[in-house]
Order: sequence, then structure tokens, then C-alpha cells
Amino acid sequence: MDSMNILRAFPLLSSISQTDLTALSSLLQARHFSQGENIITEGEDSDDMYLLIKGTVDIIKKTVFGDTFVVATIDDSMHSVFGEMALLDHDKRSSTVNARTDCETLCIDRVSFDRFCQEHPEGGVKLLRFIGVNLVRNIRKENENLKMVYQALIEEIEQS
Amino acid sequence: MDSMNILRAFPLLSSISQTDLTALSSLLQARHFSQGENIITEGEDSDDMYLLIKGTVDIIKKTVFGDTFVVATIDDSMHSVFGEMALLDHDKRSSTVNARTDCETLCIDRVSFDRFCQEHPEGGVKLLRFIGVNLVRNIRKENENLKMVYQALIEEIEQS
Repeated sequence: MDSMNILRAFPLLSSISQTDLTALSSLLQARHFSQGENIITEGEDSDDMYLLIKGTVDIIKKTVFGDTFVVATIDDSMHSVFGEMALLDHDKRSSTVNARTDCETLCIDRVSFDRFCQEHPEGGVKLLRFIGVNLVRNIRKENENLKMVYQALIEEIEQS
Repeated sequence: MDSMNILRAFPLLSSISQTDLTALSSLLQARHFSQGENIITEGEDSDDMYLLIKGTVDIIKKTVFGDTFVVATIDDSMHSVFGEMALLDHDKRSSTVNARTDCETLCIDRVSFDRFCQEHPEGGVKLLRFIGVNLVRNIRKENENLKMVYQALIEEIEQS
């Protein structure tokens, strides 16, 4: 499978034009991570977005008590991207992404992403719309999680 | 203040070109809501995004127990938009937006928004990027809320 077909398999990129995909691919940098390595570390300043080409990663969060827990595991069959939040708002990383196996990724930094959106706005609209829908899904999931934990809290208070 | 200046005061629209703003403004529909009326109702299928031109609204959520609580109050001085989640993913409304006072809004439906992004991709990139950053902020806030409620739950369990 050539590199264009690899990219086309990502839902993020499935609908952008060939010209835009070629331009975007020239901005993507290949990065390898060894098993156990952090690709992204919670709290750090960095703004790359990653496409997971090969391998499996754990998305890990810290509780207020400093414990960590795995919130999701992503493998390459899912053609997922991660790191899109800091790509957009340039704030600190909200979770750690740890390589559960050796991983091959393609990444794009914020400056290159913004340049692509400016120079290829039709492609930019498609990327930003896709990312936006994913963010909305995350908010809806967080809402549900919040409701569940809140319910557990109320029940615990009522029992005590 | 003419209508273009009213629109320009919205951070969402502050950086789009005059041509794009004119095109967008022709897609916006003025809608009035009386005090006490729901502009958006949690759980319903609708996909308009609203610009709050005049008045004050409460954003209201339901708990799993069916109680409601105000999560935020927005007034026209904030030049805020709401309803952008369903605009993007076309899923059910995640909160109720209730007119605390008589309100004047401008709204755009999903089909018109998508058409604008397609026909004016430079403007579309700017709108989607702005909405994306807002969504990221909401996720970060939800993360903090989840941590706080989780902490309260753990402390309650340990005390009981």
C-alpha cells in the first residue's frame, strides 16, 4: 500500500481532494516511538497532532490524587488521530499517550496545520469539520461520565 | 450600529473577510424569544447555531435524577454563540437554553452553515477553527468538573 492509500484510510482524510492530500502529506513528519515511551505527556506544552500508522497506544489520565488510569486504548486498525486539542488551542496536554507497542506515527505541528488550512481552505474546512465532530463526541461522552460519577456521589451521600 | 458592526463584535466573526461576512449575514435568520421560552430544549433534534444579539439566557442541564441546574448564564455583552455542537454532529441537544429575558438572536441552520463553508472556505476555516477552540475549552472544563466530582466521590466513600 503506498503512502497516499495509507493516508486515505484515515476517516479524517477520506474526503479531501488529491491535491490537498498531497500538500498535507508533505507537511507530515514520520516519528517512531518505542514500546513504553510517552508520545504525549499530560501537562506538557506541545501542539502536534498524530496519525497512528502502526501500533497500539493507551490514553492515560491522572486523577486529583495523582493516580493514573487508562481512559482508552487505540490501535492502528482504528485509523485514529490524537493530540488535536492542543493543536487547536495550544494549551497544555490534557492526557498522556503512551506507546503500548512500538509505534509508527505521522505528525503535524500547529504552524504547519494552520498554514495548510490557509493555503488549502477547502481541505482545511474538511479537516476542521471532522475534528470538530470528534470534539463534540468527546464532550457528549464526558457529559455522560460526569452524570454517572455525580449519580454515584449522590447515592453515596444518601447511604452514608 | 449597523448590522455588519453588530456581527463584527462577535469574536467568532471578527477575522473573516467583508465578502465572507456579507455572504454569511444573508444566511442568518433573526429570531425573537420571549422571556421564559426555551430557545433550545435538551434532547430535541435541531441543529441551528445562535448568536445572542440582545438579552440573557441560561444554559440548563438535567441530572440523572431529572433535576435541572443552570450551568452558565450568558448575556449579550459576551457576544457568544450557542448550539454549535448539534450544528456539527446533528445529534440531540445536550442542554436547554432558556431565555431569562426577551432575546433577539440570529441563527443559522446546519445546511446553510455547510453551504457557507463550501462556498467560502477561507471564512469556513475561520469559523470552524474558532468553534473548535471553544469546544476544546469546554472539554478541558468538563475534565476539571469530572475530576472534582470524582474527588468528592472518593472522599465520601473513604469517610463512610
